[in-house]
Amino acid sequence: MKDLYQGILNGSKSALSRGITLCESTLPKHQESAQVLLQKLSPNTGKSKRIGITGVPGVGKSTFINALGKQLIEESNLKVAVLSVDPSSPVSKGSILGDKTRMSYLAQSENAFVRPSPSGSTLGGVAEKTRSCILLCEAAGYDVVFVETVGVGQSEVLVYNMVDVFLLLLLPGAGDELQGIKKGVVEMADIIAVNKADGEMEQAARKAITQYRLALQLMHSGREQWKTPLVTCSSTEESGLTVIWKLVQDFYSGRSLYIESERTKQEVKAFEDQCTAFLIDWAKEKGIGHLNELKGRLERGKGNSTESFLEFKKAWLQEFNS
Amino acid sequence: MKDLYQGILNGSKSALSRGITLCESTLPKHQESAQVLLQKLSPNTGKSKRIGITGVPGVGKSTFINALGKQLIEESNLKVAVLSVDPSSPVSKGSILGDKTRMSYLAQSENAFVRPSPSGSTLGGVAEKTRSCILLCEAAGYDVVFVETVGVGQSEVLVYNMVDVFLLLLLPGAGDELQGIKKGVVEMADIIAVNKADGEMEQAARKAITQYRLALQLMHSGREQWKTPLVTCSSTEESGLTVIWKLVQDFYSGRSLYIESERTKQEVKAFEDQCTAFLIDWAKEKGIGHLNELKGRLERGKGNSTESFLEFKKAWLQEFNS
Repeated sequence: MKDLYQGILNGSKSALSRGITLCESTLPKHQESAQVLLQKLSPNTGKSKRIGITGVPGVGKSTFINALGKQLIEESNLKVAVLSVDPSSPVSKGSILGDKTRMSYLAQSENAFVRPSPSGSTLGGVAEKTRSCILLCEAAGYDVVFVETVGVGQSEVLVYNMVDVFLLLLLPGAGDELQGIKKGVVEMADIIAVNKADGEMEQAARKAITQYRLALQLMHSGREQWKTPLVTCSSTEESGLTVIWKLVQDFYSGRSLYIESERTKQEVKAFEDQCTAFLIDWAKEKGIGHLNELKGRLERGKGNSTESFLEFKKAWLQEFNS
Repeated sequence: MKDLYQGILNGSKSALSRGITLCESTLPKHQESAQVLLQKLSPNTGKSKRIGITGVPGVGKSTFINALGKQLIEESNLKVAVLSVDPSSPVSKGSILGDKTRMSYLAQSENAFVRPSPSGSTLGGVAEKTRSCILLCEAAGYDVVFVETVGVGQSEVLVYNMVDVFLLLLLPGAGDELQGIKKGVVEMADIIAVNKADGEMEQAARKAITQYRLALQLMHSGREQWKTPLVTCSSTEESGLTVIWKLVQDFYSGRSLYIESERTKQEVKAFEDQCTAFLIDWAKEKGIGHLNELKGRLERGKGNSTESFLEFKKAWLQEFNS
């Protein structure tokens, strides 16, 4: 444990990997060790820029992260970590091959660390493991942590709730592909970039920007004092990346108190979410309050929620004599 | 109880009011009676159209409901109930005076029932009381139940999760007022109506429609096989209301299985939400697992969610020897 702790602080990638594996384990013994590790590393966390990246499959998220990461490493001398969140992934390491191909620069760089989505039976489980990953990467000295959404499902909301700034990549064609963007994702975006604005698509990208600008009038970023900017970029031509990084820096500039308080809110919410998820699972497992039967009855279209809940509550209180 | 039950089934407004008051009570004795009442009335519920109405303050929600309700009563011989959801209201009956003024027709009609938001210390509490209200109104023979969002807060999401179709009213000026619409509300809308499209504003309303149409390309209603239509209306000139009612009927047409399954999902979710809210409150009240201390520590920016959760879980399992 001491080696692991020191190894992570020294920036050893293998120690970091082992630390993450420990956090991802569901064995009670490992969970206890992970808890101790996180506690010890706690003073060394929190110093990175946590950046979420989302967009439909095919928009080029990995290629974008690879190009931007390369620039940050080569031009700004930063250390870059890339995590992905894929609640639909049944087993870990499913997308590592894909990532290694699309993130060829980062996969080989000394100053980059790429880790695929943890597996998990619940959305909450995947989210919490990724949260721990971010902390470990920070302790290992990574300056920028990209958290990429992969696959379908609710990964956008999960990632939004664990990063400081949320970047949405769009394709230049403003037509059908938009149907792939889920409810609310556009509104969560702090920065919107129309990717693949190169070659023949450059014109289309500019046109898309105009349309999106109108659409954005109906929305506003949830963050304080921030108006979501719209830009174009090309990961293959490596254009627009400097502008995007400038926007990220603007986002952080002079707002450390705000970001700190947002992170605190995220932690409190994550804690309560974990507790409630645990409590309901525990109640189901123990069969207290007939939770499963009552839910099953509702699923068959019988009764209503309030009536069922009152029944559950009564049984629960009886069980615990209170 | 028998009188109350029969009274509600006979459509007595005073019985309905008393039934709702019973459901809104927080006294355990009343809650038990409410449970019995809901259980008995259960076979007589579910037959109404449940319609949510939202929009910023000043858009004319009450006036709109009054005008549409009047038309439904006079021309289609329907019975109309109007409930409101205002999680910010500390005491019940706060807005009844306002409602009676703006809903002058419905307030006096034999075939209408208007009830202000229940009070409640929690969002969930307000939601559940309103859910029960809907069921009681259905048992009392109301064909249409409007659920209006009032005040700020999260009332939109609450209402969205208890209705079949969600109608968003917008003002003709497409400028600053849009800032008042919260994240995600536009995307929840099943029908969007630009209200106050009368007199000098008629032209502005048409212009707004064009803008909104572009914006809507970025979004899509969450309901199956439904594209959110955009229309104009005027509550004072009573224009556009027939078109809107036609759209509501289209929404229901041939989709009873879909609506039934959506309602079932809503009930299951509401049940689980109530159970989890109860469990976490119970844990806090009993002080099991140091929930409050752990949360307080996080709020002061100390530690992280996973570490705190593991501590909670350990303490909880120890408490219950499992």
